[in-house]
Amino acid sequence: MSAYQKRIGAKAWLILVLVIFLTGVAYCQLDARKEVKIPDILGYHLLKCDFHTHTVFSDGNVWPIIRPEEAWLQGLDALAITDHIEYTPHKKDVVSTSSRSYEIALPTAKARNITLIRGAEITRDMPPGHLNAIFLKDVKPLDTETWRDAVKAAHDQGAFIFWNHPGWKGQQPDGVGKWYDEHTELLKNGWLQGIEVVNDRDYYPEAHRWCLEKNLTMLGDSDVHDPIDMSFDLARGQHRPMTLVLAKDNSEEAIKEALLARRTVVYWTNCLIGKAEYLRPIFDNSIRIKNPDLTLKGTERGYFQIRNSSDIDYELVLDKQIEDFWVPETITLYADRTVFFIVRSKSKEISGEKKLEPSYKVKNLKISPEDGLPVTLKFNITFVKEK
Amino acid sequence: MSAYQKRIGAKAWLILVLVIFLTGVAYCQLDARKEVKIPDILGYHLLKCDFHTHTVFSDGNVWPIIRPEEAWLQGLDALAITDHIEYTPHKKDVVSTSSRSYEIALPTAKARNITLIRGAEITRDMPPGHLNAIFLKDVKPLDTETWRDAVKAAHDQGAFIFWNHPGWKGQQPDGVGKWYDEHTELLKNGWLQGIEVVNDRDYYPEAHRWCLEKNLTMLGDSDVHDPIDMSFDLARGQHRPMTLVLAKDNSEEAIKEALLARRTVVYWTNCLIGKAEYLRPIFDNSIRIKNPDLTLKGTERGYFQIRNSSDIDYELVLDKQIEDFWVPETITLYADRTVFFIVRSKSKEISGEKKLEPSYKVKNLKISPEDGLPVTLKFNITFVKEK
Amino acid sequence: MSAYQKRIGAKAWLILVLVIFLTGVAYCQLDARKEVKIPDILGYHLLKCDFHTHTVFSDGNVWPIIRPEEAWLQGLDALAITDHIEYTPHKKDVVSTSSRSYEIALPTAKARNITLIRGAEITRDMPPGHLNAIFLKDVKPLDTETWRDAVKAAHDQGAFIFWNHPGWKGQQPDGVGKWYDEHTELLKNGWLQGIEVVNDRDYYPEAHRWCLEKNLTMLGDSDVHDPIDMSFDLARGQHRPMTLVLAKDNSEEAIKEALLARRTVVYWTNCLIGKAEYLRPIFDNSIRIKNPDLTLKGTERGYFQIRNSSDIDYELVLDKQIEDFWVPETITLYADRTVFFIVRSKSKEISGEKKLEPSYKVKNLKISPEDGLPVTLKFNITFVKEK
Amino acid sequence: MSAYQKRIGAKAWLILVLVIFLTGVAYCQLDARKEVKIPDILGYHLLKCDFHTHTVFSDGNVWPIIRPEEAWLQGLDALAITDHIEYTPHKKDVVSTSSRSYEIALPTAKARNITLIRGAEITRDMPPGHLNAIFLKDVKPLDTETWRDAVKAAHDQGAFIFWNHPGWKGQQPDGVGKWYDEHTELLKNGWLQGIEVVNDRDYYPEAHRWCLEKNLTMLGDSDVHDPIDMSFDLARGQHRPMTLVLAKDNSEEAIKEALLARRTVVYWTNCLIGKAEYLRPIFDNSIRIKNPDLTLKGTERGYFQIRNSSDIDYELVLDKQIEDFWVPETITLYADRTVFFIVRSKSKEISGEKKLEPSYKVKNLKISPEDGLPVTLKFNITFVKEK
Repeated sequence: MSAYQKRIGAKAWLILVLVIFLTGVAYCQLDARKEVKIPDILGYHLLKCDFHTHTVFSDGNVWPIIRPEEAWLQGLDALAITDHIEYTPHKKDVVSTSSRSYEIALPTAKARNITLIRGAEITRDMPPGHLNAIFLKDVKPLDTETWRDAVKAAHDQGAFIFWNHPGWKGQQPDGVGKWYDEHTELLKNGWLQGIEVVNDRDYYPEAHRWCLEKNLTMLGDSDVHDPIDMSFDLARGQHRPMTLVLAKDNSEEAIKEALLARRTVVYWTNCLIGKAEYLRPIFDNSIRIKNPDLTLKGTERGYFQIRNSSDIDYELVLDKQIEDFWVPETITLYADRTVFFIVRSKSKEISGEKKLEPSYKVKNLKISPEDGLPVTLKFNITFVKEK
Repeated sequence: MSAYQKRIGAKAWLILVLVIFLTGVAYCQLDARKEVKIPDILGYHLLKCDFHTHTVFSDGNVWPIIRPEEAWLQGLDALAITDHIEYTPHKKDVVSTSSRSYEIALPTAKARNITLIRGAEITRDMPPGHLNAIFLKDVKPLDTETWRDAVKAAHDQGAFIFWNHPGWKGQQPDGVGKWYDEHTELLKNGWLQGIEVVNDRDYYPEAHRWCLEKNLTMLGDSDVHDPIDMSFDLARGQHRPMTLVLAKDNSEEAIKEALLARRTVVYWTNCLIGKAEYLRPIFDNSIRIKNPDLTLKGTERGYFQIRNSSDIDYELVLDKQIEDFWVPETITLYADRTVFFIVRSKSKEISGEKKLEPSYKVKNLKISPEDGLPVTLKFNITFVKEK
Repeated sequence: MSAYQKRIGAKAWLILVLVIFLTGVAYCQLDARKEVKIPDILGYHLLKCDFHTHTVFSDGNVWPIIRPEEAWLQGLDALAITDHIEYTPHKKDVVSTSSRSYEIALPTAKARNITLIRGAEITRDMPPGHLNAIFLKDVKPLDTETWRDAVKAAHDQGAFIFWNHPGWKGQQPDGVGKWYDEHTELLKNGWLQGIEVVNDRDYYPEAHRWCLEKNLTMLGDSDVHDPIDMSFDLARGQHRPMTLVLAKDNSEEAIKEALLARRTVVYWTNCLIGKAEYLRPIFDNSIRIKNPDLTLKGTERGYFQIRNSSDIDYELVLDKQIEDFWVPETITLYADRTVFFIVRSKSKEISGEKKLEPSYKVKNLKISPEDGLPVTLKFNITFVKEK
Repeated sequence: MSAYQKRIGAKAWLILVLVIFLTGVAYCQLDARKEVKIPDILGYHLLKCDFHTHTVFSDGNVWPIIRPEEAWLQGLDALAITDHIEYTPHKKDVVSTSSRSYEIALPTAKARNITLIRGAEITRDMPPGHLNAIFLKDVKPLDTETWRDAVKAAHDQGAFIFWNHPGWKGQQPDGVGKWYDEHTELLKNGWLQGIEVVNDRDYYPEAHRWCLEKNLTMLGDSDVHDPIDMSFDLARGQHRPMTLVLAKDNSEEAIKEALLARRTVVYWTNCLIGKAEYLRPIFDNSIRIKNPDLTLKGTERGYFQIRNSSDIDYELVLDKQIEDFWVPETITLYADRTVFFIVRSKSKEISGEKKLEPSYKVKNLKISPEDGLPVTLKFNITFVKEK
């Protein structure tokens, strides 16, 4: 029994504990989790993850337990706390080493079924800049004089290592990532498996391109330092960037396997960034044409209804004109809404069964910095004679 | 070519038509439909219907096409326009009979796949008050001197007839419905199949009770006169009352069959009103315990996660205390959210596998004016030794 | 006593009337008016007006009383109903002439203290296209064979006449307004006093330029046909376009005098469009520097706080660099919020009292299609020695 | 230059500093302050204050700078950080004494013009329970064996001392505050100046009554431990409880003077709690009858418009019936809205000028646990003959 307990009295303490317990249920929406609605695909779970967060144990401004609490509320499945190893401005008051944040946060994460991953940010001058190492066993061996020793120590522990915010203005004044010999060295040594294509609010097209060229894992992380609600305006529909991981389950092992296998998609603002092989089934599993077969007369308008069950507004642009029909040049399939896709024959003389399969690009499903995912919508129309 | 077309010129007219066509797609969320998320059950579709609406053809304030447009946007599947037969205050300007509203609205409804049902409100002094007749073939024969003749005329057309707002203060000054001999007469003649348990913002407990006692169809309708956005504050999460119809499909025939078979549930504010046999599967299909099996030590708290995929906040109250466990006295399963259900053993000595099946009443699933639906939640806990 | 009254009974009728009366108060926020917060200036009221709306009496979809009801709820002070004279597609059912809409709406407008102005839309082929005539005494004389006769008839009644949506794609396929000889003719005859710079969602830069060149009144109107909530997404912060009129009071006479004197500003999305002499005092009366005097040491940051009490997010861009200070390149003064304006001396050696007066352009206060209003912010800093 | 600076390089460091500086302006609404709109009265500023908050330096979960940042964003003028003296569960990692939180937060508070007050929570068994001491010079002398010594030490420093959450279930199992002899002792010694009438989400009627009986200062505080956005759902219009202080300015001295003079009002949910002499001018300064003079005929309805410029929905209930007029039984004057107050003469024979002054009680302006503030509305009507 602590001094405090003694002072407030054993009985009051018991009551206190019980009261906290009994009221520890969702008594307002603030205590409720908002699931992220992006569908599972290809037999995998699409885990919602953030692999870059900070606490008071480096330069962050929250006690570690806040991170899994926020993560749960915002629909995450896994989380890494990655306090800076070399940059600990609160050290005068917060004396423990940065790896304490993991230990403090762990019970809170476990209770919420959030997979908490031990990580650390190797925080060095550019090149090679800041690197995150996750799935660490012990952070201490990474606190070395040279960055090479630190990265090697992480690698030796079996860590998954990725380059953070490669175009960060603090280290790349023009905001554009630059690839140095040191990064080639990391790559050759097998010491670099991924890059943050998105960090906080910023998307780095050059990082996106590097991941495609060098077959690296794409990551999107919050790098949050403050309470997350101070950084992303949830009330106005913003969300933190996430790394969506295609994993067998939400165990550490499965997540690591997926990261090493490059099975990720980055979720940033209203965009998904990733390979077409992952983005296409996400799109397909998100939408449903409610009435794929219509019967029309001549140039009468046909109203197909497309329902989008995901959290993403899909923004489609017509890829090439359809000869015999008017179809929308652009259409937004709003998140959690059903919209009309209106078509019309250019000729009154049309008759019989027609397949209409217009090709669109989904602007905000980015398969490269320049390209949206190509998709084909499929409709059937039976034209009957106008009376 | 109309005079107007002549004046603005044939070419401009063509362009106008095309422009309207090409831009006739969802260019903003205002054009998007919000589906009502209450799950289908028992092999039926749960159609969202409003069987009581008005237009300028009686004392309403919108042109008929607005009704199916609003209905589509708000997730409805079927709609009846039921202009008053005897009360047509706009008659000086709007000269057509009230059944014109159906004809004008029909093409708009069809394009949107909204089942539009021809109806009329027989608008008489109390008793018997106002009655809606739907599935009419012709409204004219209902415009009679006596209410008996009007109801008979409706019945002869095979109409489904229900009593509107039985507790309406305009006819029941104390706001409480009163059952008159005339209603018994209607019932005996087979001229009354249902009652509005909810009309506009009002719920009538006495009407709820009559429906239970006399096996009548429960209805909940908007009785909207103005644009619906002026009556229900959608932006603050309000919705119009709806009659949820358990039908094989959304054809007129299937809806009528379901109404005659009393297969309805009323959706009002955050409540569902109906028979337990319908409310229970709605509840069951809405929620999912994400982690039904937990392993705990002694008096450690267990965090079960319950996801509610419906649009309704389910409000549960514990029915009777559980002997060996603390469980929440009350819990709200928020719409489209996941919440914790926290449990705790009262004894440290507990061990082995335990089934925990607490009984709750869902306050806002009303199986009678006084009672909420009883439900049982099912959890499994394996207790291991505390280290 | 009407037939209806007879049928429902005299007593019930009385009760009905009383009940409607007694509950006719704001029982929910839907019945409450949201004032438009753009400040009065130069000794004038800044009246919020919409001079272009439709009802079922031409091709609109609401009964006339809805227009003043919506106007009141949305903070308007004056409204014109301007049904098409020549285009009345509901004529088969709605037999009265279009000027009936004014008469029907008038009592509702008066009760709400909304100034209702009788108007009509002269709806002709381009050139000259569609023209609104407001402050009419009688619409009938405008129903003529030629547009010249119609405009002359309006002018003879003392109407204020303006050109509607000059770049409307229905009449200007490329969406850009084109000035015809007919418009020069109108102008020379004194038959054209203004142009809609904004109609519905569209802003016409060319119309803006014409107003500046030819000293015409700038107007921004909704041209609403449906219930207004179906056209502008109030829940997401949208509003209808408005003509802000600098008038002595909200009488018809004062509004007409102001329109003839070109004292208007157009409110469109998050922009104001008008002359600098009106936009500058609106900006000045909207914002307040809460702490205009700061004391700083060397290169310490100074946090000035700027409060914006208006409904407009002012978007400022630095006009030219300040030599000795870092000031924000861009800053948004959010509506109904206070934001920081952070400054910092470039030199540690600075001392004494400094006036800092950076020049910005307010992008969304448009004094021409290309230019934002230039404004100067004024701050005082006293620099003290760093310890 | 720190080790970190050395590692990332001097130049990069400089750039970093500049970048942070230049982007340190409101780039999104998250960085903007929402002022609390409750008007100043009686020549005083109505300062918005929270005198009870925690950080990681006791059992809170945020770094101290977060508190003034949150306070600024939420419209506060003054803030006390009051970490527990005796209860420091993070002590293993956070070694400094609790008064460090004040020092760490101070520069952030100063830059935002938030008056930060040094405080501490004396955390003892009931009686006397938990007490806050604010305006402390040094927290250390309060860390004593007995509560009497701690309170005396605070008093000796000139602290303002108040009893926290007197009905807290942790110390008052039934949730109702109980007055002990120890509290009488504190009062007699001049060691207790106020009581929290509101703490977190809870209002204590018995504390309200004690403040009235014993002339103590009423306080309403958040007692926030987590990031404030996790405790109050700002997106759904919730706010933390506040103590509104009637002070000459926002200096520590002025605030202390006001607290000692009992010039406070508590702001909790949609209620204000305080003396009628303060609540009445707040109400009067919040509302304005836009059209206080109407001209009516007989029993025609009169529409008065009442604008409420404050953040509070005032809920009025008619105090006694008016003989000659129908007036609303209840009316809500919505925050930041204008609503109708509709009146009607009971007699058609009425004529001449009438003053109508109905008396209401404002339910949510609580002058005692049972009573709302009585107010009189004043309208003038001139009745003219009906034609």
